[in-house]
Amino acid sequence: MSNVYYGEYLQLDKVLGAQRPESDLINKEAHDEMLFIIIHQAYELWFKQILHEAGSVMTIMNKPKINDNSPELQLVAHRLYRVVEILKLLVQQIDIIETMTPLDFLDFRDLLRPASGFQSMQFKILEAKLGLKSKDRFGKEYYVSQLKPHDRQQILDLDGEETLIDLINNWLTRMPFANQDKLWGESDQEGVHPFWAQYREVYVSSLSDAEMNNMETFDLLFFEDVEDPDRKLSMAARRSALFIMLYRGFPLLHLPYRILGHLLEIDEQMATWRYRHMNMVHRMIGKRVGTGGSTGKNYLKNAMDSHYIFTELAELTSFLTERSKLPRLPDEMSAHLGFGA
Amino acid sequence: MSNVYYGEYLQLDKVLGAQRPESDLINKEAHDEMLFIIIHQAYELWFKQILHEAGSVMTIMNKPKINDNSPELQLVAHRLYRVVEILKLLVQQIDIIETMTPLDFLDFRDLLRPASGFQSMQFKILEAKLGLKSKDRFGKEYYVSQLKPHDRQQILDLDGEETLIDLINNWLTRMPFANQDKLWGESDQEGVHPFWAQYREVYVSSLSDAEMNNMETFDLLFFEDVEDPDRKLSMAARRSALFIMLYRGFPLLHLPYRILGHLLEIDEQMATWRYRHMNMVHRMIGKRVGTGGSTGKNYLKNAMDSHYIFTELAELTSFLTERSKLPRLPDEMSAHLGFGA
Amino acid sequence: MSNVYYGEYLQLDKVLGAQRPESDLINKEAHDEMLFIIIHQAYELWFKQILHEAGSVMTIMNKPKINDNSPELQLVAHRLYRVVEILKLLVQQIDIIETMTPLDFLDFRDLLRPASGFQSMQFKILEAKLGLKSKDRFGKEYYVSQLKPHDRQQILDLDGEETLIDLINNWLTRMPFANQDKLWGESDQEGVHPFWAQYREVYVSSLSDAEMNNMETFDLLFFEDVEDPDRKLSMAARRSALFIMLYRGFPLLHLPYRILGHLLEIDEQMATWRYRHMNMVHRMIGKRVGTGGSTGKNYLKNAMDSHYIFTELAELTSFLTERSKLPRLPDEMSAHLGFGA
Amino acid sequence: MSNVYYGEYLQLDKVLGAQRPESDLINKEAHDEMLFIIIHQAYELWFKQILHEAGSVMTIMNKPKINDNSPELQLVAHRLYRVVEILKLLVQQIDIIETMTPLDFLDFRDLLRPASGFQSMQFKILEAKLGLKSKDRFGKEYYVSQLKPHDRQQILDLDGEETLIDLINNWLTRMPFANQDKLWGESDQEGVHPFWAQYREVYVSSLSDAEMNNMETFDLLFFEDVEDPDRKLSMAARRSALFIMLYRGFPLLHLPYRILGHLLEIDEQMATWRYRHMNMVHRMIGKRVGTGGSTGKNYLKNAMDSHYIFTELAELTSFLTERSKLPRLPDEMSAHLGFGA
Repeated sequence: MSNVYYGEYLQLDKVLGAQRPESDLINKEAHDEMLFIIIHQAYELWFKQILHEAGSVMTIMNKPKINDNSPELQLVAHRLYRVVEILKLLVQQIDIIETMTPLDFLDFRDLLRPASGFQSMQFKILEAKLGLKSKDRFGKEYYVSQLKPHDRQQILDLDGEETLIDLINNWLTRMPFANQDKLWGESDQEGVHPFWAQYREVYVSSLSDAEMNNMETFDLLFFEDVEDPDRKLSMAARRSALFIMLYRGFPLLHLPYRILGHLLEIDEQMATWRYRHMNMVHRMIGKRVGTGGSTGKNYLKNAMDSHYIFTELAELTSFLTERSKLPRLPDEMSAHLGFGA
Repeated sequence: MSNVYYGEYLQLDKVLGAQRPESDLINKEAHDEMLFIIIHQAYELWFKQILHEAGSVMTIMNKPKINDNSPELQLVAHRLYRVVEILKLLVQQIDIIETMTPLDFLDFRDLLRPASGFQSMQFKILEAKLGLKSKDRFGKEYYVSQLKPHDRQQILDLDGEETLIDLINNWLTRMPFANQDKLWGESDQEGVHPFWAQYREVYVSSLSDAEMNNMETFDLLFFEDVEDPDRKLSMAARRSALFIMLYRGFPLLHLPYRILGHLLEIDEQMATWRYRHMNMVHRMIGKRVGTGGSTGKNYLKNAMDSHYIFTELAELTSFLTERSKLPRLPDEMSAHLGFGA
Repeated sequence: MSNVYYGEYLQLDKVLGAQRPESDLINKEAHDEMLFIIIHQAYELWFKQILHEAGSVMTIMNKPKINDNSPELQLVAHRLYRVVEILKLLVQQIDIIETMTPLDFLDFRDLLRPASGFQSMQFKILEAKLGLKSKDRFGKEYYVSQLKPHDRQQILDLDGEETLIDLINNWLTRMPFANQDKLWGESDQEGVHPFWAQYREVYVSSLSDAEMNNMETFDLLFFEDVEDPDRKLSMAARRSALFIMLYRGFPLLHLPYRILGHLLEIDEQMATWRYRHMNMVHRMIGKRVGTGGSTGKNYLKNAMDSHYIFTELAELTSFLTERSKLPRLPDEMSAHLGFGA
Repeated sequence: MSNVYYGEYLQLDKVLGAQRPESDLINKEAHDEMLFIIIHQAYELWFKQILHEAGSVMTIMNKPKINDNSPELQLVAHRLYRVVEILKLLVQQIDIIETMTPLDFLDFRDLLRPASGFQSMQFKILEAKLGLKSKDRFGKEYYVSQLKPHDRQQILDLDGEETLIDLINNWLTRMPFANQDKLWGESDQEGVHPFWAQYREVYVSSLSDAEMNNMETFDLLFFEDVEDPDRKLSMAARRSALFIMLYRGFPLLHLPYRILGHLLEIDEQMATWRYRHMNMVHRMIGKRVGTGGSTGKNYLKNAMDSHYIFTELAELTSFLTERSKLPRLPDEMSAHLGFGA
């Protein structure tokens, strides 16, 4: 094998040759512009890494049937966990940009128009691949107008592709927990699911008077199998997800449980990042028009609220019940969820 | 001097003897209740420390005149910085409570009613001492109803005391930068401030067309000296604060600049803590009624927005101008702001 | 159920009533002594939590046979993970004590003699329960002399109890991977293990010339079944641990693999804590005699090196081989390691 | 001004086009090689930023006289603080590489020979510019043999240049605190410094019996003005540094005190980084030969101890005395250290 040398292996001539401050071009002193460039390049490197992990996760989740006896679900859980860890680092990276004061930013801010801190294509692609559709983006006209036509189209094209939440939906939907399945044994009553009817009883009896309103949503989510254009999970998928959260102590559900958890952590870390980024932009430019031609804070504030992807998993937490009150599973199901005798 | 032993010095018999899980009292297995107790006690220890630091800062800032040649402003800056560092730790501590899953919390949650995660007196006292008045608390009826009468009164009583932002206002107001002062030298025109009129010109010429609306606020903030019950800073204080942010390169303004910066960081860290806490509560209980008898998320979400204390300092960032365009200060002022020849 | 109130539930009268600075007792101004007290009390709260988690892990690992179809191994992995997260927080907490300068510490240091920062009984108990024996403690005479006789005895008594690494050893030793077991099928040759002989071949052929020395250790660790008083893992345990690391892709080995990983992370975080603590002590007192009557740095430096507990697991990393070269397992073993058909 | 677009401004075609895994070249599956590449490229970006900050600091410190009434010392303190914050991020980044398991690394490790994780030229240049001479590098023959001749020469050439600690030495040496200066007023006795003789008395009386050995070092450091090839600070510099640490409450000494503090923090963060990196390498390859042809842990362990740069500042902490016992400064000196009347 040919020898590999550090600097060449990492193509440092490219990476370290990509910093060209605008202030240098006009011989203006703006020491902090280098930080501005470097930190955004570091963000883009990590976005590429996150896309690499997410891509491999989607490749596995895209299989019509994942073999529980293969390492695949372990890889999915592990790589989603890695994405969470990287996002935590990206949140902390904001501490570094906060060492730049507004007055220092003013030294070179006008040289950057119309570039803007939130025109990262990779970040938008990541949101899209996770599950965010264009129609659900806050201020869609705004962000679209900021991008070049070619880039704008690339984001719009992603609307037509299957996203991670679609693949998660498929995976959850085909599980045997939601509907009638031989693992449940014989059904007592015609048309009544042996488990879900029972769980409904357990859940209702756990509610205080103030919480009785929850039943309306419970029945909507777990007993009404209708298409809802604003929802990405099927009723079967919701049932499976809740079942996993309730019975995660069984070996077969351990990795699915971790996977659902990491998806929620990813949503939370991305929201935390948008939140910290919003605060930083506001601190940096106040009501001055952002380099992208807008007061950035308003955009990010609403993006923060509306760009959650896995809310349909997050909302299931309202429908958990205390462990000691859970229905006992039939022997066939218990055996299926465990290791062979 | 008498000997001091570690365990006795730290009164560990008290600190480590204060954990009594409700689940233990009824012989119910709920392993995670210990974590719930310990983490809240750790928070309270740190809140006490923050109040200790804030108290000493307020004692110094309360002096009618702080001696710039004494270490006092260094102590203020240093201790506010320490508060920021502690708040960062408290945000990270939320990672620990997030190792408790909703199903684990359900094992003991019902035993805690009506205690609630956000009934911390010390946290409310801290908000009040920094500058938050009862009338500005989100859902004031709610939080008041949660507290025992004695505690409720303690918070209400703080409305009548001078807070940190009041002391900051006094300090900024008495500075010689806002109004006519011999340091400015002779005024060219009667009634026209030699600096502020000039700065207005500089600022207006820095605005793009889209930003011209800022002038309305600029004039309101820096040229209208009227009492506003919703504002805590006087016009003189705002002028001084902006002057500090613009001319912080001068030695006499270095520590005042750092102090203003740390106040903004404290606001941001507390908001980040409320944000992370809100997410965690929502993840933990969803639409289930919180142990405090409410859906906690809504309260925290609005508290997050409305419990900022130093917004009147934060908004000044919109009125900065590029360093190279700033008016040159008269020699008397420059000398005053520097070290003796 | 009786009502529970926040302040009473958390016994805040005790927790917040346990701070009594020595400088207050003699009316000496030493603002930072409160921080010194609070931070050590926070450490002790978290040590108690870690001992709570470790205790429950040891209770489970102490069972003569752990049911893989129960949630028990999930609990072990989860609680060890929680310990890692708490230790990370404790490392970060050192940032807070570093806001105290040496000159500030000098204001009250002399009042603390002979108490010392490293007389925490809980920390020593934790090290002991994890697996550290008195004879392996650096400077054992030193630390023993620092403790009161009652406390000294408590640590020495732990030498006679089973520790976590003993329980891990028992668990690994009884696994069917190390020795002849029907899961391996028929052995080709008398006395030759169908797997370990084969793995030895694979490993030897992966070594470069410079690495051939490893074979001596390899044979010692995996083929010599002798009692070694300096080692806590049996040969069977080492075989099982290596097998887990190599074949962790199989479902039955997933949780065992994570558990081994968390044990190594615990060792690393505790070493990082000792390292940061050592640096902080050295920065704080230099060559001044520590309040405990010693130059603390030297003790901690050596403790850092010699107080690792799970080194026998860590050293197995030298004996891994590339995944693509691993021996294929017999069908009976594969089936045992997976979910039922 | 011409328009600036995000992707072009950041030259993302270069930055995101610089990842070419060796495993891709031979069509071998090694998912984690991308992480290995990206994380090292992120490190190199941040090393470039640190060098940018350090370079500007050295430009300022290189001036024969720094104007205390200019923002220059503020810039030095601020940029050194930024370097500390970046180093903290780089330490945390190690958490990300730790999501790669030894077995995953084995999938592509052999493809990287002889490149090695610690052949970063920028890191070596940074150490050199801060003050590390080739003769003081651990295993200098080793690291030299790892680099190409051109790179090796670049490091050796830095031995002949002034480093940051040299510039710090010059700055401290020319301060008026170490020697006779009119600011000290009249000297009581011929040849006896009015302050240092007095401080020696104060210090000696603060020592306990066990500490009396310190006097030998005290006199060597503060009263013997001899050239020592192993020391970079002059006696005058050491005196000035200690004076700054003792009297930092005076305004003129505030920024110098912060600067010294940040230098110590930089040393500590770089040592923490080497420590964490060493542990990670050891966990990853054990006794396998590193891709650089050595067992990496040994090198890093010793580098950790011996690559401290500012030890001569750190050791001064042993010679501090309680604030209340410090000699009162003459009026001329106090006035010089404060703001004009």
